[in-house]
Amino acid sequence: MTTFTKTDAIRFEGPDSTNTLAFKAYDKDRPVLGKPMAAWLRLAAAYGPSVAWSGKEWFGDGTLPRPWLGPGQEKADARCAAAFGFFARLGVPYFTFLDHDAIAEPSSLAEHRENLERIAETIAAEMQASGVKLLWGGANLYEHPRYAAGAATNPDPEVFAYAAAQVRFMLETTHRLGGEAYTVLSHREGYDTLLNTDLKAELDRLGRFLAMVVEHKHRIGFKGPILIEPKPFEPLKAQYGRDVATVFAFLQRYDLLKDVKVSVEVNNATLAGLDFEHEIASAQILDVLGSIDVNRGDPRTNWNTAQFPHNALDLTPAMVLLLEAGGLPSGGFNIDARIRRQSVDPDDLVIAHVAAIDVVAEALLAAEKIVAGQRLAALKAERYAGWKGELGQAIATGTLALDALADLAIARNLDPKPVSGRQELAEAIVAGS
Amino acid sequence: MTTFTKTDAIRFEGPDSTNTLAFKAYDKDRPVLGKPMAAWLRLAAAYGPSVAWSGKEWFGDGTLPRPWLGPGQEKADARCAAAFGFFARLGVPYFTFLDHDAIAEPSSLAEHRENLERIAETIAAEMQASGVKLLWGGANLYEHPRYAAGAATNPDPEVFAYAAAQVRFMLETTHRLGGEAYTVLSHREGYDTLLNTDLKAELDRLGRFLAMVVEHKHRIGFKGPILIEPKPFEPLKAQYGRDVATVFAFLQRYDLLKDVKVSVEVNNATLAGLDFEHEIASAQILDVLGSIDVNRGDPRTNWNTAQFPHNALDLTPAMVLLLEAGGLPSGGFNIDARIRRQSVDPDDLVIAHVAAIDVVAEALLAAEKIVAGQRLAALKAERYAGWKGELGQAIATGTLALDALADLAIARNLDPKPVSGRQELAEAIVAGS
Amino acid sequence: MTTFTKTDAIRFEGPDSTNTLAFKAYDKDRPVLGKPMAAWLRLAAAYGPSVAWSGKEWFGDGTLPRPWLGPGQEKADARCAAAFGFFARLGVPYFTFLDHDAIAEPSSLAEHRENLERIAETIAAEMQASGVKLLWGGANLYEHPRYAAGAATNPDPEVFAYAAAQVRFMLETTHRLGGEAYTVLSHREGYDTLLNTDLKAELDRLGRFLAMVVEHKHRIGFKGPILIEPKPFEPLKAQYGRDVATVFAFLQRYDLLKDVKVSVEVNNATLAGLDFEHEIASAQILDVLGSIDVNRGDPRTNWNTAQFPHNALDLTPAMVLLLEAGGLPSGGFNIDARIRRQSVDPDDLVIAHVAAIDVVAEALLAAEKIVAGQRLAALKAERYAGWKGELGQAIATGTLALDALADLAIARNLDPKPVSGRQELAEAIVAGS
Amino acid sequence: MTTFTKTDAIRFEGPDSTNTLAFKAYDKDRPVLGKPMAAWLRLAAAYGPSVAWSGKEWFGDGTLPRPWLGPGQEKADARCAAAFGFFARLGVPYFTFLDHDAIAEPSSLAEHRENLERIAETIAAEMQASGVKLLWGGANLYEHPRYAAGAATNPDPEVFAYAAAQVRFMLETTHRLGGEAYTVLSHREGYDTLLNTDLKAELDRLGRFLAMVVEHKHRIGFKGPILIEPKPFEPLKAQYGRDVATVFAFLQRYDLLKDVKVSVEVNNATLAGLDFEHEIASAQILDVLGSIDVNRGDPRTNWNTAQFPHNALDLTPAMVLLLEAGGLPSGGFNIDARIRRQSVDPDDLVIAHVAAIDVVAEALLAAEKIVAGQRLAALKAERYAGWKGELGQAIATGTLALDALADLAIARNLDPKPVSGRQELAEAIVAGS
Repeated sequence: MTTFTKTDAIRFEGPDSTNTLAFKAYDKDRPVLGKPMAAWLRLAAAYGPSVAWSGKEWFGDGTLPRPWLGPGQEKADARCAAAFGFFARLGVPYFTFLDHDAIAEPSSLAEHRENLERIAETIAAEMQASGVKLLWGGANLYEHPRYAAGAATNPDPEVFAYAAAQVRFMLETTHRLGGEAYTVLSHREGYDTLLNTDLKAELDRLGRFLAMVVEHKHRIGFKGPILIEPKPFEPLKAQYGRDVATVFAFLQRYDLLKDVKVSVEVNNATLAGLDFEHEIASAQILDVLGSIDVNRGDPRTNWNTAQFPHNALDLTPAMVLLLEAGGLPSGGFNIDARIRRQSVDPDDLVIAHVAAIDVVAEALLAAEKIVAGQRLAALKAERYAGWKGELGQAIATGTLALDALADLAIARNLDPKPVSGRQELAEAIVAGS
Repeated sequence: MTTFTKTDAIRFEGPDSTNTLAFKAYDKDRPVLGKPMAAWLRLAAAYGPSVAWSGKEWFGDGTLPRPWLGPGQEKADARCAAAFGFFARLGVPYFTFLDHDAIAEPSSLAEHRENLERIAETIAAEMQASGVKLLWGGANLYEHPRYAAGAATNPDPEVFAYAAAQVRFMLETTHRLGGEAYTVLSHREGYDTLLNTDLKAELDRLGRFLAMVVEHKHRIGFKGPILIEPKPFEPLKAQYGRDVATVFAFLQRYDLLKDVKVSVEVNNATLAGLDFEHEIASAQILDVLGSIDVNRGDPRTNWNTAQFPHNALDLTPAMVLLLEAGGLPSGGFNIDARIRRQSVDPDDLVIAHVAAIDVVAEALLAAEKIVAGQRLAALKAERYAGWKGELGQAIATGTLALDALADLAIARNLDPKPVSGRQELAEAIVAGS
Repeated sequence: MTTFTKTDAIRFEGPDSTNTLAFKAYDKDRPVLGKPMAAWLRLAAAYGPSVAWSGKEWFGDGTLPRPWLGPGQEKADARCAAAFGFFARLGVPYFTFLDHDAIAEPSSLAEHRENLERIAETIAAEMQASGVKLLWGGANLYEHPRYAAGAATNPDPEVFAYAAAQVRFMLETTHRLGGEAYTVLSHREGYDTLLNTDLKAELDRLGRFLAMVVEHKHRIGFKGPILIEPKPFEPLKAQYGRDVATVFAFLQRYDLLKDVKVSVEVNNATLAGLDFEHEIASAQILDVLGSIDVNRGDPRTNWNTAQFPHNALDLTPAMVLLLEAGGLPSGGFNIDARIRRQSVDPDDLVIAHVAAIDVVAEALLAAEKIVAGQRLAALKAERYAGWKGELGQAIATGTLALDALADLAIARNLDPKPVSGRQELAEAIVAGS
Repeated sequence: MTTFTKTDAIRFEGPDSTNTLAFKAYDKDRPVLGKPMAAWLRLAAAYGPSVAWSGKEWFGDGTLPRPWLGPGQEKADARCAAAFGFFARLGVPYFTFLDHDAIAEPSSLAEHRENLERIAETIAAEMQASGVKLLWGGANLYEHPRYAAGAATNPDPEVFAYAAAQVRFMLETTHRLGGEAYTVLSHREGYDTLLNTDLKAELDRLGRFLAMVVEHKHRIGFKGPILIEPKPFEPLKAQYGRDVATVFAFLQRYDLLKDVKVSVEVNNATLAGLDFEHEIASAQILDVLGSIDVNRGDPRTNWNTAQFPHNALDLTPAMVLLLEAGGLPSGGFNIDARIRRQSVDPDDLVIAHVAAIDVVAEALLAAEKIVAGQRLAALKAERYAGWKGELGQAIATGTLALDALADLAIARNLDPKPVSGRQELAEAIVAGS
């Protein structure tokens, strides 16, 4: 029988355990720089990838035994039971979900709303019973053929309207369920070819769409941020919100910075050609960090494989940045990963999540050591020390004009020599030396 | 004898010519949508890549016979003579140059200024004699070891000061020579590892640097735009101005949008994972398009090969966008390409430029046909026609709130069906069908 | 009504036609270096991509109106009628097909055989009526969940047996239908992670599988080659037959070179990081060239988009190699491309094929001009002329040992200087200058 | 004063040390599966990257303080002293070197031989004094302009002769110094464009070149293997020995398998789109594994950055394969990495090597744990267990023909179901769970 709901919850057994169904690093109450591990991470499991992902892909049909997949309310209820059984077993404090994964497939928009309301009641009861909370909700605006050419950016305004309705219902549902944020999924906001695309019009409509969501959020009193995921491509050739900087530019341009934040995904960052820590640092600096998805790509392929993290060192530099900033300003660590389509054993999903949570915890512990040791911070401080001097301050504060600075450089006969960037030392410190 | 200055200037001989030293497509006075070809393109040859590039690379020494390379004023003068001989032979209306390529290598900043002033006089005389004008000038802020850790973003403020001085001198020189724009080269503004980098401080300094340049530009009465080149990486692992959107975000944040524009390079666009036409369209929409570099990469390698364009179809979609917009708002088409290091015959440089100019001209002619034929524009207009209707207008003008729109969608029982995106047709039209 | 079978066949109307449903370059009887265009190209349309592709992908459901998709014999017959209606309209001499796309979905292997036999009769009748011939057939060994971990290389020998049965039936069917080649699809022969993979055992099994196919081919008297497609990845992280050289190494190692050839696909070549012409040249040199798939990737994404060719210049260098070799030794140009999932208009499929065929024809005509003009061949001959001299011949024929050659080099005080590689000139010639 | 030769040798201080100039994991005599760590790894430092690399690159001049760089014998002697001082301090048992890095720059081939003989004497004395042994030697056939178009594959046979002489001298020198292998560097054996390239002729010449080297090796009684490095590109667009499979195909075709092996580099593997462990596994299966270079690339850039390894987990899977095979059949772990050009402090080179050696040692220890724990091996064995049964054996041993197997599949009504590939579990085991 395919089920993830065995009675035994996953426990912490410590680093020497060889039990694949126990945590070796994730010890939720363990203090890290004065705050429990669980409070730093706010871990979430994802409803859809956990119970509604069949393993289908372009070249192949679904492989995973998920008896609760299929049309009808009964199946939807069974998915919900399976999901919460799984969440409870895992012991994560949060979950995330999209309307499409939870509801019985509707045949009209009115039925969509009804089905969503119905499953929301079941979810509320499960949340109540299990204590698992909602990190964020979202509407699936990419799976159905109607969204092939975009949701907000579709050439057909009726699709915009349909998407708006889906988002309204799901935003209200998220609010009702006490969700901490709401995510607008923008997988189809972009293009397959620029040749048939009115770039300006599409960006304007995406801006309008988000503005409507923000306005509605305020109207209903939803306090959490609206999140969007930077993502460079796939399924489309090019998505508008390529990376954090691009999304920031967009939000700034359409005056959405106050209410919309980014959900940074490891896999999306690397597909965009950027380190995960670059995207975290950018989001921190630009004050748009909203939440994190820890699923990763394969370093040899360049599409979205959404795998479970397996290498703590890939997450450590970002974790250092988060610790230095006192943690995430909102959201949490969502394990939005897909099990491999060959991983057909029900235990695989549990093992994958347990291992992923341990990897995240290991990265947190490694970052704690680095931050506490202060060697990396000292290396950086020393590297930039010159800017604390007179010349540095005069430049930084804008008291010197270009010509005055050039005159000064000539007068002092400046001939600065390179000083070491100490990259190899920094890498060694992060690697644990 | 190595020289590019044979007496015979390159002429237009038409499409049936097999003379590699004649234009087959570039017919400078030919009208294209009512404007001469030359006026659309404003072609420029690049001083450094043409006469000061030796063919050196990481794995190998310079190969190209450039007898005018080396220290001292005599060599610098010989480089200048070679450059203008070449420009004249090519018959392009513009050139571009960087201080470092033209001046005698100095041993101090004061000497740098002197050497620049001295060569500027020679250049002015050559410009006068040949009629070739300066499209833009710039300072090389990446070659010297002092810039290994950045120019404006260097951890050492003395390097900032040194760079500021170089830019001041070159901006003034560019102004004196009647240059139409000034380019700030930012190849070293970024990082090799984020681990040793204070991202916020570095971005602030780059903002400060550009603000100082802008202020000085106004002080001296320079009318042209300040340009920066979006570029994702190389020589660095990550450069701050990754692509047009990222640069726009930066300019917006540091209040530089009024004076600073982007110089879009084909090679940099594709290295960033974006089509050249995407970058042109983005720059047009965001009103930051300043100029174009037409050197391209190799589609199989992912570093800056800076090759001469060889495939008109790669440029055609961008050319359509430019024609539709009435041309470039400033700048021109700079052929900032490097001859292959095996292309050691002096004729190779001429052949490469002639072929490149023909490729650009072919793209312009193809775009003319597409724009005049109106089929692509019609395809696009038809695709978005729905937004001209009542629903589209109500959404676009913001008269509908999210809940009202959702109510409307339910009330009308919307169920929009996909309509064709006509990508293959659009591609066929652009390919000349 | 969704159909591709309008009565009007596609005709050649010449380069000035603006009829998207007419050929502008493909003029099948036009002589090219003494042989009709059609004879050089042996164009084939692909059954599955044309009528059995729904537009589904990882992130989205099928979008294309293909009323003949679905279970049952009636649908299978309708697919067949649609396919041949389409082939006839297009006027291509060949088609290619996979069992899975044509047959009614079976519930057992025995039923698979029956359904294949049944549809083969229908296909035979359609072939008879239309004159369209079979270029190659193949079995789909990747779509069904049983193949998730491989077909020949599956850890379960029963899957090997199942795949063997499918191939036997389809090879015999291909033989019966007069197919000119048989293709073994190896999309699942590789791995998602090496950690769970016995590389040697899997390669041995793939070798065994192909040996069994080759033996059976001889047993039944099938004269055509067995083809396999080099492909680096996707759906898997790594496929065993990465590129032509890798497949050659494999065939050589398992003694299959006499009977197995490669089918080179443009998209697979570029995904492997190689130019299409590199793969063609390699296959020619290694004497393994079997056939060609002309579908291409998008230069900005790194997964299999299988798009229709749109840029003749991307195919021209390979076409030059084919013309110089007198054409393909077997197989043909198979248009194994998928319509974009937004291209939901039935005409889109026709327009896409017409444009693709024109692109291939343009490349052929461009190559004819290059080969006839002899400038590229002369450039190459001149470049290597030195090897015709005494020293070159002595080295090439092996009459000089290393020490003797070194002595000679010292004695003659050799100091060879670089000569031009003339890359830019070669590119200009290929681009049509 | 720039020197790496401080008197204090690097010692093992254990995992809790924070001394950046001490080993934390590399404890050379520590037994690993019954053999000392040092014997598994046979670590080598590289002469050129350590003392002769200036930090120059395409966009920038050298930055590293290496006072011994420059022309003349005195500098050459100083380089040698610096190198051996560094090797001794590091305590590695081996070094590797190329002629060009060690010798005084010659003005003729005869002088090249003299200078090589002269420095070889100095090197021999240093080896004697320090006990450091030569892992392999090689000739630099890529740096000088004469090699721009290839060494063995140059269109000019005189260049072939020049390269042959360099290799003869260096092979004899390597033999004299007791080197364990000889490496043929093939960075320039490939092309920048296929348009000007006679692929077959070039491959034939590369085959001839290697055959001459092999013959000379036997003539002089050199016992070690000849090594070549698979490498996909850079400096060239395409190199002939793209990856292990391609090199194997080449060696097999030119009958060189007995004497020529591959030197697998982490960076080259990933540039070729392959995991390092894939290349190791391939080389093991094909019996061509010769040696290892542990320098890595940056996962976000796609050129040869040749960085020091910093993440043990990236090396662990390959290390498992090596432990299972009883170690390397020849060669060793060569740290052929380049210090970053900002790492101008002399200590940086030492810190980088110490950290790199620790990373390699950590990977070895992790692999020991995995191999000893037997869980990964068991997972694999269980996965393939079916092939031990009757059906599997009948297929594998070739007793079943295709038709018989198909008949059997029908008769047994086979319908195999997917079983779990357990990828996430395998990844967790390798990550240390």
